[in-house]
Amino acid sequence: MRTFIVVGHKATTTPNFSLEDIPGTSGRLDILCRAVTASFVISHGIRKDVCVYLVLLGGETAKTILLRGESLRHLNPDERTTAALLKKALALTATAEWAMSTSGIFVRTGGFAELLADLKDTKLVYLREDGTDIRGLEASGLSGETAFILGDHTGMTPEEEALLEQAGAKVVSLGSTSLHADHCIVLLNWFLDTNVFMPV
Amino acid sequence: MRTFIVVGHKATTTPNFSLEDIPGTSGRLDILCRAVTASFVISHGIRKDVCVYLVLLGGETAKTILLRGESLRHLNPDERTTAALLKKALALTATAEWAMSTSGIFVRTGGFAELLADLKDTKLVYLREDGTDIRGLEASGLSGETAFILGDHTGMTPEEEALLEQAGAKVVSLGSTSLHADHCIVLLNWFLDTNVFMPV
Repeated sequence: MRTFIVVGHKATTTPNFSLEDIPGTSGRLDILCRAVTASFVISHGIRKDVCVYLVLLGGETAKTILLRGESLRHLNPDERTTAALLKKALALTATAEWAMSTSGIFVRTGGFAELLADLKDTKLVYLREDGTDIRGLEASGLSGETAFILGDHTGMTPEEEALLEQAGAKVVSLGSTSLHADHCIVLLNWFLDTNVFMPV
Repeated sequence: MRTFIVVGHKATTTPNFSLEDIPGTSGRLDILCRAVTASFVISHGIRKDVCVYLVLLGGETAKTILLRGESLRHLNPDERTTAALLKKALALTATAEWAMSTSGIFVRTGGFAELLADLKDTKLVYLREDGTDIRGLEASGLSGETAFILGDHTGMTPEEEALLEQAGAKVVSLGSTSLHADHCIVLLNWFLDTNVFMPV
């Protein structure tokens, strides 16, 4: 299982945003929509072995949406239909327990600390421009069982970085060009597909 | 200069499509929008050294849209605003000469054969799943001066493949997993950024 975690610091936790202006009305949920597409969508199919957590911190109470490739339905490659799926998940009354919205999409209350606590037995890799070059990681034993953590356009906060350090996350860089989260995910999927740099 | 060419076999040549349903009303112009974003957008900026040709074959008369990073303005990372820029370009009366729509975006009539004729002095690389593995290309002298050709969800036609063969295009594969055009472009940009596989 490949896991991608994307933290949306301003991302709305309510369904009250407009599909006609996702970037302007949802706290940049568009970034998370593209991350979802990059994680799952291949030509004529969905990656079954992928799992995505979207951590939404732009509301009064943080929420996390989980998408599981093995049961995910109705995901199209365009941004708007992905946003519509997330809107539906955010319309559910969320509690601290996962509740299913549509097939393969789940939601609960809770933010980044809660998620890291859940993943305490998973190897964590935090993507940051000044981390260890990913091309040097051949012998490090990274694999598809790793959870990759990506920030949004605002990066990660010092508090989140402290949590990652405590959790033993490895800080890894994809190069000096600062890329959007979805583009990082495309690269990570390809590395895992082709076993370049990161033997499984 | 990095050049990406994406052929949209069903893509509309008129502005008469809905921004509320791009995939359903534009002949999958959404695929080309995402290819544009993947070509140009990095965190907090636009790649100046990139040039994109979108070949639109879903109308009575083929049209080609050219986007040049050095002068491109108003491009946001979301799909809808990219589609709005293309809509504007398609509203211009196109002739066989390039005409500017908004800054950095140009349009003309003409399809794939005309474009290949224009690029007759450029090295061409055609991306196809069964091509030569890109990881074996280290010594081949591919560089940022190459034009990379990608199909849409329908692939390329036998006629287009014949044109590519005539033009001496190298057929290259990114691996056995069949990826969307925009994801291929993310990978190609990264290879060129990091000088992996393809020395510049």
